This record gives sequence, C-alpha cells and structure tokens, in this order.
Amino acid sequence: MTNDNLVQKNSIALPLDQLKYDAAGLIPAVIQDSRSGAVLMVGYMNRESLRRTVESGRVWFWSRSRQKFWLKGESSGNFFTVCSICADCDADALLVKVTLEGSGVACHTGRYSCFFNLLHEAAPAGGEGMHHG
Amino acid sequence: MTNDNLVQKNSIALPLDQLKYDAAGLIPAVIQDSRSGAVLMVGYMNRESLRRTVESGRVWFWSRSRQKFWLKGESSGNFFTVCSICADCDADALLVKVTLEGSGVACHTGRYSCFFNLLHEAAPAGGEGMHHG
Repeated sequence: MTNDNLVQKNSIALPLDQLKYDAAGLIPAVIQDSRSGAVLMVGYMNRESLRRTVESGRVWFWSRSRQKFWLKGESSGNFFTVCSICADCDADALLVKVTLEGSGVACHTGRYSCFFNLLHEAAPAGGEGMHHG
Repeated sequence: MTNDNLVQKNSIALPLDQLKYDAAGLIPAVIQDSRSGAVLMVGYMNRESLRRTVESGRVWFWSRSRQKFWLKGESSGNFFTVCSICADCDADALLVKVTLEGSGVACHTGRYSCFFNLLHEAAPAGGEGMHHG
C-alpha cells in the first residue's frame, strides 16, 4: 500500500491552524484502520493533543471524562500509529487513518472496533429490517 | 455483499433509547460508504433525526448551523441509503454505513468525501513526513 491510497487524489493541503474547534476547544477525530478501512472509534482532540499527535506519530486525545491528555494505548499498549490526518470541508471534524500496534484491537472491551452496538440494520433486498427500540 | 459484512461478528443489539446525547441533544454520526469503506462525512443527529433515519431508510441530520432537520440529499439528490447503524462502546457516537444515491458524491463541494483537506501525512518508511502549519 502506498500513501497515495490514504488520501483522496484531489486533496488540498490545509494548515493546522485553520481548524475549527468547538466551544470547549475540541474537534472530533474519526479513527480509521488504514489497512482494513474499518472505523475504530471517535475521540476528541484539542489543539495540544493534535500537536502531540503530529509530533509523536501516535494518536493523542483529550479525554472529556477524565479532563486530561490521553495517549491512546498508554495503558494497553494498543497505540495508534498515524498514517494521515484530514479535515472535512468545514474543517470541524478530523479523519485520522492509523495502523494498530500491540494486540491490534482498538476498544477497551477487547473488541477490534468500538462500534459493536448494533442499533439498526436495513433489510436485505425485499426483506424486513432489524429494528430495536 | 451480504449484511454479515456490514457489522462486526460479535455485535450486540442495543435499543435506540440507550444512546447518550450531548448537552444540545446531539450525537455525532460518522457516515461510511458500505461499498468502498471510505469515511464520507460526520454529521449530527438528535433523537428525532435518528428516528426519521431509521423509519425512512435515508439519513437525516440535525443541521447545527441552520438549526433544522436536514434530509441529506434533499437539495442535491445525493441521498444516503442506510445499511446499518452502530453505536460505540460508550453509546455516544454512531457509525452509519450507507450506499450513495444520485451522483454518488457526499460533499457539497462535489467531492466524493468531505475529508479532502490534508493536514498531515506520515513519512513513507525512512522518509520525511508532510507537515503543514
């Protein structure tokens, strides 16, 4: 896999200081496995955690619950190594493509991805959808 | 492609009413192309837009800028058809896998994905990284 696969061909370079943070100084960061394409989790970064992420090459979040910087993998060893970081058209959300270190799982529950809670699934063509709640 | 490919094998059914919304009653929704795996955009849903999404099979957001319900594609024709909706381990973020209708692009700029602003790209093995700002 080359880096050409990691970003859209028509991507535009954007300076980090052009990002828009919310009232709490945060921006949501979607973490995607660059190899499988799976979405692993959503975390939040502030200006400093993004700076640490770029500088170290590993993903740093701002933990909203603990109100502190959080190096993903600092306790589990399951670090995220950064491949690319893109902002969206409004510059108020990030997409971070990563490779997984350690045991290769992203979720603190031991699952590969944090998105394991199935809320709704569309019906296969002609069938009935699964619909909880 | 079968629906088995759309959700993790160890997924757990979660009722919609177990979701955690933020102080503004919103939850971020990561939109992923179920065919390519590309992350297309991040939008926000409230309880009612999620209800409309499940009921209609097309993605409805809450527009924070316009403070109104927003059927994605209502003006462009580029609707998102829902394949599956999963919540993360904390139940405070959604992953919505979709197929694209209309011209097959997600972004209002005409690009396939909204994540076209490249902030940072890791160096290929042994090289120097691209780093703006």
